[in-house]
Amino acid sequence: MGRSLPCCCPSLIPSRETAHFYLLGVLIALYMLAGAAIFSSLERPAEIRAHRLWERRLKKFSHDYNVSCEELKSLLLYYEEARTAGIRTNRGRALWDVPGAFYFVGTVVSTIGFGVTAPSTMLGKVLLVFYGLLGCSATMLFFNLFLERVITLLGLLILWCYAKRRRLCRPKGRNSESNRNEDWKPSVYLITLLLFLAAMLVTCSAASLYSVMEGWTYLESLYFCFVAFSTVGFGDFVSSQRKHHEKTWAYQVANCLLMLLGVCCTYSLFNAISVIMKQGLNWILTMLTWMYNC
Amino acid sequence: MGRSLPCCCPSLIPSRETAHFYLLGVLIALYMLAGAAIFSSLERPAEIRAHRLWERRLKKFSHDYNVSCEELKSLLLYYEEARTAGIRTNRGRALWDVPGAFYFVGTVVSTIGFGVTAPSTMLGKVLLVFYGLLGCSATMLFFNLFLERVITLLGLLILWCYAKRRRLCRPKGRNSESNRNEDWKPSVYLITLLLFLAAMLVTCSAASLYSVMEGWTYLESLYFCFVAFSTVGFGDFVSSQRKHHEKTWAYQVANCLLMLLGVCCTYSLFNAISVIMKQGLNWILTMLTWMYNC
Ligand SMILES: [K+]
Ligand SMILES: [K+]
Repeated sequence: MGRSLPCCCPSLIPSRETAHFYLLGVLIALYMLAGAAIFSSLERPAEIRAHRLWERRLKKFSHDYNVSCEELKSLLLYYEEARTAGIRTNRGRALWDVPGAFYFVGTVVSTIGFGVTAPSTMLGKVLLVFYGLLGCSATMLFFNLFLERVITLLGLLILWCYAKRRRLCRPKGRNSESNRNEDWKPSVYLITLLLFLAAMLVTCSAASLYSVMEGWTYLESLYFCFVAFSTVGFGDFVSSQRKHHEKTWAYQVANCLLMLLGVCCTYSLFNAISVIMKQGLNWILTMLTWMYNC
Repeated sequence: MGRSLPCCCPSLIPSRETAHFYLLGVLIALYMLAGAAIFSSLERPAEIRAHRLWERRLKKFSHDYNVSCEELKSLLLYYEEARTAGIRTNRGRALWDVPGAFYFVGTVVSTIGFGVTAPSTMLGKVLLVFYGLLGCSATMLFFNLFLERVITLLGLLILWCYAKRRRLCRPKGRNSESNRNEDWKPSVYLITLLLFLAAMLVTCSAASLYSVMEGWTYLESLYFCFVAFSTVGFGDFVSSQRKHHEKTWAYQVANCLLMLLGVCCTYSLFNAISVIMKQGLNWILTMLTWMYNC
């Protein structure tokens, strides 16, 4: 018993990693509180305005057509029910034909989950849990393999540029140069910058396509791209849902490929930023210990 | 130039890692196709039924109250607009008060993104992109630190149980025993099993709470828990949205904590399963190379 204790103790006295974890937890909580205050002050007035506008419109309709508000609300409740099955007033494409279901399955395994389509039958719901468990794990592995590949590729690219520049600047002294090449490792900042540029490129190209095909403004398209590629997926904007998109196969395929590329790039970017954040945490911890010791 | 080529070549001839990546890509595509076929066959009849039911209800209402379908549709379009600002017929809690905005921000940084609340103002949308970029990276780091912590903890737990059992079975021969303890590493299968049990425990407890507080059936609550904890977040079921939840602080806090715990556990579980999947890929590749060589 006594001999197994020494290997348990380090987890009781917080190690540097554990301290990172708690510090980050506190910082995220503060960040969320600040975000809550900002978004609340931004969106609350719009919410109140929207409520008033809707009440006015409902009353006007009720008055104009001589239908009581309660009766209208019963219709709206039916409509809510219909909406959960994917029915919209501006009738869009079929949601559960095979391409639609493929799009749905894509939003499940990538964890985007727009929610325009969600299983409405109980069997579908049960199946989704098992399907998602395997699918989400597989895509997580896929994203991680993509991340490894892209980091290796960017590292090689940077190393190649670095070696080329060195050779152009100093054509003599080959030995010391090759030694330096071997020591030198691409910085995480440079890789993050490159990933950021790649993500921006994909996002901007995708936004151009979406603003043409979906009738959104360019800013709305950019917002959609961020929400989709970060796998947040609110579902307030969803691509490829209009009636005529059913027949534009090229657009549907392009949409899927752009989503895939966008999600992979954004996942890599988030990971790179999180490495920088870890260095930041380390720095804060060092400062805190230093201040505590003084 | 010649000297930098050898380090570029390995990425042209697919390495084992690259082969993993492509093989997994193909397998996921097949998995998605199968899923699309299954979900389409399950949900398409329900969609058609829901469409017919809605059309019938709309026509009946139009006939009963002598309002044309076009006029009703104009009201429904207004309603769609109101819905994007978070208005529902069964009026729920305020969405953009500070606790509501906190919940929203939580769904952003965790990438759940239910979409009940999404910024409706242009400034909110722009801000969300920058807010999400930092927030999602930070939570990704948080999840990864949690994963490290939990794996270490489970490893120690397993090692401790193993050492205890060994000591109980064979009280003699201490030297050879301690040697064995040092060599022995907890298997990924055991860790995955423990993580699965932990995730199940959290999910079942959370589902019990939700089925009481939200008026959902237990199965619906389990479905909601999976959808939320896997960060898919369709938004067909969303916790803590009813009017009276505004005042039940304890439930709101419990809801947030359960979400956090659930997401962390499920993230760890997905990661553990993805490690097993990587071993599976390795096995398939070995089999393929062996078959190709024969
Ligand atoms: K999501
Ligand atoms: K979502």
